[in-house]
Amino acid sequence: MSTVFTEFDLMAELNQPGDKIVLLVMDGLGGLPLEADGLTELETAATPNLDHMASTGTTGLSVPIRPGIEPGSGPAHLSLFSYDPVRYEIGRGVLEALGIGFRLTANDIAARGNFASADADGLITDRRAGRIGSDECVRLCAKLQAATGDLLADEGVQIFVEPVKEHRFVLVLRGEGLDGELTETDPLSTGKHPLPVTDTSGSVEGERSARLINRWVEAARRAIADEPKANSLNLRGLAKDPGLRRFPDIYGMRAAAIAVYPMYKGVASLVGMDVIDFDGDRPTHEIDALEQAWNDYDFFFIHVKKTDSYGEDGNFAAKVHEIEAVDAIMPRILALQPGAVIVTGDHSTPAKMRSHSFHPVPTLLWSPRAMPDTNTTFGERACANGGLGIFHATNLVPQAMGHAGRLKRIGA
Amino acid sequence: MSTVFTEFDLMAELNQPGDKIVLLVMDGLGGLPLEADGLTELETAATPNLDHMASTGTTGLSVPIRPGIEPGSGPAHLSLFSYDPVRYEIGRGVLEALGIGFRLTANDIAARGNFASADADGLITDRRAGRIGSDECVRLCAKLQAATGDLLADEGVQIFVEPVKEHRFVLVLRGEGLDGELTETDPLSTGKHPLPVTDTSGSVEGERSARLINRWVEAARRAIADEPKANSLNLRGLAKDPGLRRFPDIYGMRAAAIAVYPMYKGVASLVGMDVIDFDGDRPTHEIDALEQAWNDYDFFFIHVKKTDSYGEDGNFAAKVHEIEAVDAIMPRILALQPGAVIVTGDHSTPAKMRSHSFHPVPTLLWSPRAMPDTNTTFGERACANGGLGIFHATNLVPQAMGHAGRLKRIGA
Repeated sequence: MSTVFTEFDLMAELNQPGDKIVLLVMDGLGGLPLEADGLTELETAATPNLDHMASTGTTGLSVPIRPGIEPGSGPAHLSLFSYDPVRYEIGRGVLEALGIGFRLTANDIAARGNFASADADGLITDRRAGRIGSDECVRLCAKLQAATGDLLADEGVQIFVEPVKEHRFVLVLRGEGLDGELTETDPLSTGKHPLPVTDTSGSVEGERSARLINRWVEAARRAIADEPKANSLNLRGLAKDPGLRRFPDIYGMRAAAIAVYPMYKGVASLVGMDVIDFDGDRPTHEIDALEQAWNDYDFFFIHVKKTDSYGEDGNFAAKVHEIEAVDAIMPRILALQPGAVIVTGDHSTPAKMRSHSFHPVPTLLWSPRAMPDTNTTFGERACANGGLGIFHATNLVPQAMGHAGRLKRIGA
Repeated sequence: MSTVFTEFDLMAELNQPGDKIVLLVMDGLGGLPLEADGLTELETAATPNLDHMASTGTTGLSVPIRPGIEPGSGPAHLSLFSYDPVRYEIGRGVLEALGIGFRLTANDIAARGNFASADADGLITDRRAGRIGSDECVRLCAKLQAATGDLLADEGVQIFVEPVKEHRFVLVLRGEGLDGELTETDPLSTGKHPLPVTDTSGSVEGERSARLINRWVEAARRAIADEPKANSLNLRGLAKDPGLRRFPDIYGMRAAAIAVYPMYKGVASLVGMDVIDFDGDRPTHEIDALEQAWNDYDFFFIHVKKTDSYGEDGNFAAKVHEIEAVDAIMPRILALQPGAVIVTGDHSTPAKMRSHSFHPVPTLLWSPRAMPDTNTTFGERACANGGLGIFHATNLVPQAMGHAGRLKRIGA
């Protein structure tokens, strides 16, 4: 099943009260065997609880974006939340701001910033400023904030310069009437001058925004002109929060996000989920938070990060171990008597590839109303023969809605 | 892959004469095991003929509407006839009229009517009139027909008031120039006044239609004001026949419907199929009718109702038995040498749930030209691994067209 789900109006019309839904995302869950005849991380892990849920529930493979496309975390999560990431584009600046936990308002333009090196004529000599360290990035951002924070106060615009890591930072302009379709300054190769920001929307707001950003860029470059490496900078992906239709409005569910890393809290809040604060950073702490918030919400998004991190590190064994840690908490979720539990990943991160990958993602949908398929284990190859088939990730929330009794019949 | 089929122009361009096609629908065919380790109704039934067709044909799971959505009978059948029910919406009034076998014309507006109870001030006290019986409904409709049938004769509009069951009836206004987008009168909760019908299309026809319907509502309420329970009424789902493109024109097939219940005859005639009259109400009688009409048509829709009725009753064993009765007639269909036979349901009605459900529907496509899959039985879990995969119901007719040699090659 791979049609992209797009009918938000239909969901808004059909939703009704029902049982609670848990969407548990093990980041980068999908894997690959290290050897041709070997098992994947998930197939290797001892997962008695997930296997039992696979026996009584239904399984399949989720396509996050489109077949063959390797997902970033932002688009992959949007897709799990049922927003087609190809249709609902989130600018890189917005994703970068979300990634550091910066809460954007409707008056903000966000940009991804890159410190760079330039020669005496301003020609870019290194687009990453000699790969400066993250500490250096923090110092440079503080310097820029001090020098340029009030630069556009005469135009009613506030400036925020926030470090990300290494040469990367986030710039946010906040003020009334900022908008437009804004080009990037990065010439994309060395030996060239940075480009000015221009507006391609042709709107008054766009023209003004481009002018203000160029004013900031000029002042910012002047403020760091004495730096040995990072004496220039570029802006990319200038964008506003796209104002997505709110998940709680589409589905008629109070929705909560339980996540440790800012990026995932950010994407969840972008679609209108409440972000739950809690202590600790292990899956058990996340389930503590789930139990505590259980009565206050209808839909829970739980994000487990380390499966992806270990995949990126190429640490097959540690990824296996983290999957087993998640398996161990499943009985506590089931004890809450949800109407539907989805266990999936946002994308695959095979330890073998040390990277996100394009492979579809093993997915389990457990529900008292599920039609069991023939699978008795939870793994990539089992899921390829599961009752959900191969489906687009945007279909998961509607599927869970049906299984949780949250959709009215269509027609008589 | 489950893309919704929408290319009617393509079908109209590519269709050519070929072999005959039979679409046999067991209403509510899909089921669930009663116990976690049990079998579904279809998996339990002894179906040697269907199993043999599964061995030599191909199988899959059909998604009637969208994943997770529980279909009503009207939309589910439209989908089997290849009309996406999300795109081609049929008003409730039209479905209700179809459900009682009332043949609508292009000049008709149909509404679903509900008898209600009101207090002395006209405030609704019971939206179902104390759940009056069906006999009472027949009497009340006759009373309304007598009192209001000629009410709008001065405007060239005829009135039909037809009983459905319990508190439900159908109102049809027939006349030139009736149209618009008309709101409902039902305040949706008690203690409130009914609402007037208004037109939201802004058209002259809409304004006039709303005015005439309000005139009728007022007269009708006056006519039943002395009733002990049903002394008021509401109208919902006011709509016209949407004028769907005709199935025979799209596919180049003379199409016949063989069904016992009015609703299914109605949906078939809505898309331009001929409804065949015959004696009896069992599957064997339907095959008698099929044999008799065989030379006059290219496409046959056969509808078996009782599988759904037993599912709704929670009668697992009787549903199994009815499936076996259908299995028994399959040799007579094959003896006619069709080019393709589809055996499916419009939706699932698991006896366990006593209701329509969102689960995808086991489907069998038999044809001398089929590529056999690995399945040797016809059941939900077998179909999940079938050669048709998990597909949208709108794709079935085009699939059958190909298998029956009824589609020209595209391109050179």
